[in-house]
Amino acid sequence: MSFTGIDNLESGEALEAALRRIGDERYHNRHPFHRLLHGGRLDRGQVQAWALNRYYYQAMIPIKDASLIARCDDPAIRREWRSRLVDHDGTSENDGGVARWLALTDGLGLERAYVTSLRGLLPATRFAVDAYVHFVREKSLLEAIASSLTELFSPQIISERVSGMLANYDFVTPETLAYFSKRPPQAQRDSDFALACVKAHAATQESQKAVLAALEFKCAVLWSMLDALYAAYIEPKHLPPGCFDAG
Amino acid sequence: MSFTGIDNLESGEALEAALRRIGDERYHNRHPFHRLLHGGRLDRGQVQAWALNRYYYQAMIPIKDASLIARCDDPAIRREWRSRLVDHDGTSENDGGVARWLALTDGLGLERAYVTSLRGLLPATRFAVDAYVHFVREKSLLEAIASSLTELFSPQIISERVSGMLANYDFVTPETLAYFSKRPPQAQRDSDFALACVKAHAATQESQKAVLAALEFKCAVLWSMLDALYAAYIEPKHLPPGCFDAG
Repeated sequence: MSFTGIDNLESGEALEAALRRIGDERYHNRHPFHRLLHGGRLDRGQVQAWALNRYYYQAMIPIKDASLIARCDDPAIRREWRSRLVDHDGTSENDGGVARWLALTDGLGLERAYVTSLRGLLPATRFAVDAYVHFVREKSLLEAIASSLTELFSPQIISERVSGMLANYDFVTPETLAYFSKRPPQAQRDSDFALACVKAHAATQESQKAVLAALEFKCAVLWSMLDALYAAYIEPKHLPPGCFDAG
Repeated sequence: MSFTGIDNLESGEALEAALRRIGDERYHNRHPFHRLLHGGRLDRGQVQAWALNRYYYQAMIPIKDASLIARCDDPAIRREWRSRLVDHDGTSENDGGVARWLALTDGLGLERAYVTSLRGLLPATRFAVDAYVHFVREKSLLEAIASSLTELFSPQIISERVSGMLANYDFVTPETLAYFSKRPPQAQRDSDFALACVKAHAATQESQKAVLAALEFKCAVLWSMLDALYAAYIEPKHLPPGCFDAG
């Protein structure tokens, strides 16, 4: 797969429009849990449950990205994708997105060893995140790249999240939310690249369908994580055996 | 891994007791959805949603079992495990457990092409079932075998299911439930073998811990499938985008 490939602008624009429609319909900013979280209608235990579960997603992102690099035979894509590893793993122990997520769970009063042990994780979180990693390892490289395109929609959700959480929760501080202040420009750069890649390479109807299905799949990963949080911690509050007890 | 191995009876008995405790605490017969299903408190659409989602589990079981056989270097275990393929795939087109499950979805009024297309599936069902298949492919053979041990507990749930569903739902007939009348002796034979295997081979504390964790993992797979059904179709009835609409 070479990045300087087919010039396929016209159907590229149609593809981008179709991808953005999927985001409008299926991105997790439409999920009821998201609205409760940002609207300040969760208690501290429920916000902790969200951060604890989302930690597993954050922790697996560099594994996912390295899996993609590991199967890519184009040095230009590998080089570009490598910046994601830098963003998430940083250049020293307390640097990078995963470390900043742990600053968030620290700030929410969760024990770091408990968070990283994954003992309190909802099984549905683990299954959804692992499904994403397996998808990137097992589907075509084009589909693996396309599955990252939820980042097209993340700058907006992040800005809603930060302002909503700061306004509504006295247990949340700007320092705690450092993860989110770093993310939007990274997500913008990454999704610009992934979108250009997909538009350049999804030249057949079949490959365009696969690209759209990859984004739907990824939206379902994020959506089902919020479904599981909602069911365990909001309604009907059925906590699966052994999971984090939000009190 | 040879089946005529270490004679490890004493700790084998303790291991079996620990496995049965996990079943007592975490098997999905304790899930609220199960109680509603058997107690006749679901409507036809909700029973359809259960059968439609559970179909994916049934359909992937022979894939899971073949994956286990594919990584097993002991002909005796491969031969024994092969009977599971026969049970699920049968010896002709309308024979076997998967076909009998489709007779159930037929009997409930679901279109077969829709069921097998998986279009209506809850993403959480797909992620949970795929997690099981990946577990069997990626963990040790001992853990893969141990993850089948939920069958130790299935004869009881099946008898509750059949009597409860026949007594409570006028849209369910004995023919529709043929799947369940075949399963208990198969599950008994299979779980006897898998349990003996695990007791004979989990000789260290570390391997016994891995066996127990494998059964906990598998209980979480089944449990999270019912969590997802409950959340989508009972309460709070948040149907993920694109999934089967139970009306």
